[in-house]
Amino acid sequence: MTILEHKPEAAENIDIFQHLESEVRSYSRAWPTVFDKASGSWIRSVDGKDYLDFFAGAGALNYGHNNPVLKSALVDYIMGDGITHGLDMETVAKRELLETFERVILKPRGLDYKVQFPGPTGTNSVEAALKLARKVTGRESIINFTNAFHGMTLGALSVTGNSMKRAGAGVPLVHATPMPFDNYFNGVTEDFQWFSRVLDDSGSGLNRPAAVIVETVQGEGGVNVARPEWLRALADLCAEREILLIVDDVQMGCGRTGAFFSFEEAGITPDIVTLSKSIGGYGMPLALTLFKRELDVWGPGEHNGTFRGNNPAFVTAAAALNHYWNDDKLERETLRKGERIRQTFMNLSDMFDGVSTRGRGLVQGLVFDDPADAQKVCKLAFDEGLLAETSGPSDQVVKLLPPLTISDDELEFGLNILAEATAKVRA
Amino acid sequence: MTILEHKPEAAENIDIFQHLESEVRSYSRAWPTVFDKASGSWIRSVDGKDYLDFFAGAGALNYGHNNPVLKSALVDYIMGDGITHGLDMETVAKRELLETFERVILKPRGLDYKVQFPGPTGTNSVEAALKLARKVTGRESIINFTNAFHGMTLGALSVTGNSMKRAGAGVPLVHATPMPFDNYFNGVTEDFQWFSRVLDDSGSGLNRPAAVIVETVQGEGGVNVARPEWLRALADLCAEREILLIVDDVQMGCGRTGAFFSFEEAGITPDIVTLSKSIGGYGMPLALTLFKRELDVWGPGEHNGTFRGNNPAFVTAAAALNHYWNDDKLERETLRKGERIRQTFMNLSDMFDGVSTRGRGLVQGLVFDDPADAQKVCKLAFDEGLLAETSGPSDQVVKLLPPLTISDDELEFGLNILAEATAKVRA
Amino acid sequence: MTILEHKPEAAENIDIFQHLESEVRSYSRAWPTVFDKASGSWIRSVDGKDYLDFFAGAGALNYGHNNPVLKSALVDYIMGDGITHGLDMETVAKRELLETFERVILKPRGLDYKVQFPGPTGTNSVEAALKLARKVTGRESIINFTNAFHGMTLGALSVTGNSMKRAGAGVPLVHATPMPFDNYFNGVTEDFQWFSRVLDDSGSGLNRPAAVIVETVQGEGGVNVARPEWLRALADLCAEREILLIVDDVQMGCGRTGAFFSFEEAGITPDIVTLSKSIGGYGMPLALTLFKRELDVWGPGEHNGTFRGNNPAFVTAAAALNHYWNDDKLERETLRKGERIRQTFMNLSDMFDGVSTRGRGLVQGLVFDDPADAQKVCKLAFDEGLLAETSGPSDQVVKLLPPLTISDDELEFGLNILAEATAKVRA
Amino acid sequence: MTILEHKPEAAENIDIFQHLESEVRSYSRAWPTVFDKASGSWIRSVDGKDYLDFFAGAGALNYGHNNPVLKSALVDYIMGDGITHGLDMETVAKRELLETFERVILKPRGLDYKVQFPGPTGTNSVEAALKLARKVTGRESIINFTNAFHGMTLGALSVTGNSMKRAGAGVPLVHATPMPFDNYFNGVTEDFQWFSRVLDDSGSGLNRPAAVIVETVQGEGGVNVARPEWLRALADLCAEREILLIVDDVQMGCGRTGAFFSFEEAGITPDIVTLSKSIGGYGMPLALTLFKRELDVWGPGEHNGTFRGNNPAFVTAAAALNHYWNDDKLERETLRKGERIRQTFMNLSDMFDGVSTRGRGLVQGLVFDDPADAQKVCKLAFDEGLLAETSGPSDQVVKLLPPLTISDDELEFGLNILAEATAKVRA
Repeated sequence: MTILEHKPEAAENIDIFQHLESEVRSYSRAWPTVFDKASGSWIRSVDGKDYLDFFAGAGALNYGHNNPVLKSALVDYIMGDGITHGLDMETVAKRELLETFERVILKPRGLDYKVQFPGPTGTNSVEAALKLARKVTGRESIINFTNAFHGMTLGALSVTGNSMKRAGAGVPLVHATPMPFDNYFNGVTEDFQWFSRVLDDSGSGLNRPAAVIVETVQGEGGVNVARPEWLRALADLCAEREILLIVDDVQMGCGRTGAFFSFEEAGITPDIVTLSKSIGGYGMPLALTLFKRELDVWGPGEHNGTFRGNNPAFVTAAAALNHYWNDDKLERETLRKGERIRQTFMNLSDMFDGVSTRGRGLVQGLVFDDPADAQKVCKLAFDEGLLAETSGPSDQVVKLLPPLTISDDELEFGLNILAEATAKVRA
Repeated sequence: MTILEHKPEAAENIDIFQHLESEVRSYSRAWPTVFDKASGSWIRSVDGKDYLDFFAGAGALNYGHNNPVLKSALVDYIMGDGITHGLDMETVAKRELLETFERVILKPRGLDYKVQFPGPTGTNSVEAALKLARKVTGRESIINFTNAFHGMTLGALSVTGNSMKRAGAGVPLVHATPMPFDNYFNGVTEDFQWFSRVLDDSGSGLNRPAAVIVETVQGEGGVNVARPEWLRALADLCAEREILLIVDDVQMGCGRTGAFFSFEEAGITPDIVTLSKSIGGYGMPLALTLFKRELDVWGPGEHNGTFRGNNPAFVTAAAALNHYWNDDKLERETLRKGERIRQTFMNLSDMFDGVSTRGRGLVQGLVFDDPADAQKVCKLAFDEGLLAETSGPSDQVVKLLPPLTISDDELEFGLNILAEATAKVRA
Repeated sequence: MTILEHKPEAAENIDIFQHLESEVRSYSRAWPTVFDKASGSWIRSVDGKDYLDFFAGAGALNYGHNNPVLKSALVDYIMGDGITHGLDMETVAKRELLETFERVILKPRGLDYKVQFPGPTGTNSVEAALKLARKVTGRESIINFTNAFHGMTLGALSVTGNSMKRAGAGVPLVHATPMPFDNYFNGVTEDFQWFSRVLDDSGSGLNRPAAVIVETVQGEGGVNVARPEWLRALADLCAEREILLIVDDVQMGCGRTGAFFSFEEAGITPDIVTLSKSIGGYGMPLALTLFKRELDVWGPGEHNGTFRGNNPAFVTAAAALNHYWNDDKLERETLRKGERIRQTFMNLSDMFDGVSTRGRGLVQGLVFDDPADAQKVCKLAFDEGLLAETSGPSDQVVKLLPPLTISDDELEFGLNILAEATAKVRA
Repeated sequence: MTILEHKPEAAENIDIFQHLESEVRSYSRAWPTVFDKASGSWIRSVDGKDYLDFFAGAGALNYGHNNPVLKSALVDYIMGDGITHGLDMETVAKRELLETFERVILKPRGLDYKVQFPGPTGTNSVEAALKLARKVTGRESIINFTNAFHGMTLGALSVTGNSMKRAGAGVPLVHATPMPFDNYFNGVTEDFQWFSRVLDDSGSGLNRPAAVIVETVQGEGGVNVARPEWLRALADLCAEREILLIVDDVQMGCGRTGAFFSFEEAGITPDIVTLSKSIGGYGMPLALTLFKRELDVWGPGEHNGTFRGNNPAFVTAAAALNHYWNDDKLERETLRKGERIRQTFMNLSDMFDGVSTRGRGLVQGLVFDDPADAQKVCKLAFDEGLLAETSGPSDQVVKLLPPLTISDDELEFGLNILAEATAKVRA
């Protein structure tokens, strides 16, 4: 199914990772092989085995591995000695990206955002967003949500939920207060009952927040989907109380849920938006922070970063926008394929006890009551040539993030593997 | 002097930057042109003007722009569909880099470091270093130095000196206490008088620190050079009191001062080392965190980041190590060229009042008593086709960071421009 | 009704307060007169007007003003040159207090507490409690409740709800997270729904707490009464998760709700208890911190305070315990009188719209939907010779804290004033 | 030498302290006896032994134990049913104190301070001072000094130096940075070299401070005396940079160093002054916070405390001011007696190696190179009937704080004991 060439490697070398790489390594433990090449939805190990990739760089490869359209633009740029490293100097590649981003993304959606290049990763973008929100409001406190994931640098980590990752900080994480994400109590509680009450009670002990930071779908948190009406109510609640709304679209943006921005379905306009992962298109580091024009109170150089001008990623980013976002075909296909997964997962939920499903567009989760089952399914899938990871606080969710460009046959092939693995584990 | 082709652009487009990019942009204000292409020590604007680059991506381009050796490896890798985005999965490119790094860098220097991929930027590496130091020691406090620069995410920013950048945090920066960098008092005070005294006085009010973080030469801080004996005394002081020593070699590592690591000259072995900027070789985002084997107490996934496996940068990193670091030629050349700059700057210091110089290897500063003079020199240089930036708390230092691969003629060309600009400003 | 002598003062002197005392003064604005003498339930102004005191030093005068039993012991002690100021030296007065406290209070209740003298105020006791909880558990985070009040020093303030008081800190208050107090949602939500869920969800983003601090009745917060079953569930929740339970009994202890400790009714045994206000008996500064024997991990002098050995207050404290707590008479009387107030307030609630009531023992609140009404009632009462203050986040509650020793006639007299004032305001 | 009556106590009761009082107790370990009565400079144990008190309640008993002038006023007040507990209501006793304080203290010194009653202890006063400084300036950072002691609540503790006491906080203490106190480097360094440099260097990493808090003589820190010229330079440095100067005069105020305020000798006018310990005169809890009129930006009730209106202490405070501060007799006597101690200590320093001395007025320290010697001297003194405590980070200083009212004979008697003990230990 793939046309990658096979180049065998000497087995004796394999333990350099164990010898030299820190114990912090993680994915390499779940998928114990050495990967070599990749193309589209497929990734090949050094011993020649092909894996269908339902993981897609944790959402950084929405257009597949080594997408030929982007590859062509990238190689042309490199061969033509285009600027590689540009900090925040003006370059032709950056101009192209800005123009494209405005024409293809912002203008058609009526969004009057300024664009910041905060450094090339999602956590850089979140740090910039939090700084800006604090500067604009003069307040320090941030509201985050249960099971949120926003990054691993100190500012982003303080708004992240996972207790193991938080403990890694080595200092008490402060200035953030978690609130219940949508459906945290399975519908028995009115939305924002707690949040709106403590905001409006001057004796509640909640520091008045600068901003709320939210993912529309919590990927790392276990594919928790916020309903559009919940997001709208959240946006209203923020607007009424002059609290900035930050949508962290690092993983769910760039079409993962269908539309380019994951918040479009809800019809809201966040004050600040973070983008990374698939914005570069080709899997190279890039991040943007978007914010309403009137919030652009930054002083020159008040936030910076050596790799904020990763020009080859500007080139592939612009190429991806031009190729995939000038019409609504990708969006429609994403929704159609997402529905295809949902149907399979609904069937599995019906067939097996202790299994349920949730998701939006091409982020779909198969939820197991027993987290061990989710692990087993992913393990079996790997053995059968499929990469899928678990997420959620107990790793109880098999989370699918296939490339948006996956073919129907590939999707079918992968879903069959997962169905069989689920049957084996739960039957 | 360069062979870049010239592709003119329409002038009417230039204000997309003003219209769309955040006010946070900085370099584009100092160098008001749109850059298009680059090669070696040269960078060309869209209107065809060539600039000699004495700035080199703030130290991220030690091997010059679009170095042909690295470019060739990079393009081959991309054309061959090598893995682009790999998180911390094991890949052929990563294996190659680890093996090369151990063989070319660690082994010959007798360094038994583990290697962490903390995310692709210097600030990621600093955040990982601080987290690890806190986890290992169970203490939260860090000692940094006056005029330090370590990055812009919240953890790294808290150990950074610049008041404007610190204010951008929007929360009080805590858990770090500044100490005087070498020669902060122009030699009138004994080294570590204050630091060692407060460490040893149980009533001093200083929280017992987990670690000291230091740059051997403070680039952003104004080309402040720590003497080898000061670094040795610092290392001893830390060792005696069981405080971890972190050398932030993001800007000064990878040969900038001569040897691969900037601390080699002092003969010390830090507990933790951060690398980024030129470690990728080609200007693409990459960072490493190195630490002594016994400090590797990370749990799997306790620190992560989407772009920590930027495989194309692994390829160029390995190629750069192989090409430039198998012998001591680059190191010798760097020292020789650095000496060349120093001579010029010494002459300027002798000729003009209010001018002095300091530096090590190929980071050299021309210091003006009047900061306005430094600005003027850089402005004149830009007009004459030379990129050089100022640094220091008052931007009073013209800081040179030319590519290590610069030719003698190029160096001469650039130094002449600077000498003439200095003469114009100070005469 | 009182036998205080009247000593007129020159009116021209009265503005020394305006001239010299800080704008921070508060009660003197609500009750614009100069008080001179006091006895039992009465306090007399310098111009000879007597006020019935339904406020009792904010709960510091449970045994009335200048209680003759305590006065006698106090004067004897002073006249006999007993130690006045003793830090934490062993003294006869302290020995007497410790023995009495153990015999009269701890033993009969089966409480094996150690006793700390943390400094002579409630906020000192709260600070000591928080320090100890953090030291015992090695965690820094504390759970407090909406509308809690625990004191004004930085540690105590961080667990206090009132936004105006919190803002006074001038630094972001951290390390505490508010949870909903009992009945915060008027019964529509299951108890501890939010708290137990975030504790048990490792992805919730809540720092694992060292302790929970709670008042059984929130006096300053608006006379919010926790139900016994809620307190028991809270104690169980803490015990199961190895979180220390601190009951702040500064205002509600010493018999205010009937039993000596306000938590006795619920049948729980807190890990740590704070006492102050009426523990000294005579209105002189004194505070105790009690904790389970096994929690006494303090090192000598690890917490201290110049006035922690206020020996005259030890004398009056022991006298009060001996006189009032050797049998259950005071407790029964408190409950009977509390019921008397409740009946009056129930009637007022029935008679007037926008009025309701809540309370326990001799802390009873008359709640007005419109905060302005509560102010007016207190103002009218003052004019009629009754001191009562408002509380709650909007000052919407007329809070009664009469001396426990108040006579039935005095109670009747005061309730009539309040009833008439309420009628005037609401009719 | 004393006329206290002797009332024997049963020895079997003595262990209630061990059984019931927390391990945090401290002085009772150094002076293992039960004290019963006290008068003037003497304190008597329950077994009838008299001790001369060179400790005076850690400076809270400047006028001696149970001073008859104050006792008389106090008993009259209590017998006359004066207000005991008054929060911040206006009372006759408070009016008397304010008028007296203005007439006797403020006016003659030309001080236009407002007076706050922040709660009855030194740490309350420090907390109020820090809050006010932060509110006025809008900054959060405070500068403190090595070996400072300001109190044990969280705000005050964060500006305190002692590492054992700091560790008791259980949370990282932040928002304060220590600077070297006068003579920290034995004169080899220019005053404020470090402090003024980091203040003026925008790259130093020091958060711009709201205030400096300083003791003119550090009592707990080891009787470290700031020179008048150092204090003047500090005041100038603060004034030039718009940083508030807080003098913590809790221990050194009220005449301990001669003049009423310890800063008078230097001729400076602090922005904020804290008073406690001896301000009440009789050893009962009282504290004041003084600040320049224009700094009184407090809102009503923004800081409070149940025992801020300890009226019996107002009475003794006013009596002490009237009796001792209407002329300069006490000041002259204090200086004369201090000189007497200094002479003895100078002689001891001359006679014995490893002994030196420092002090001001009636706070004088005998410093031993070997801390064990200081312990031994205090132990021997206790055995001979003299109370004196050690201070300093290693407890190497025998610190004398005798009552200011001590007689020459008493002073002689005590100094002889100390001289003999020193001789025994060092000879």
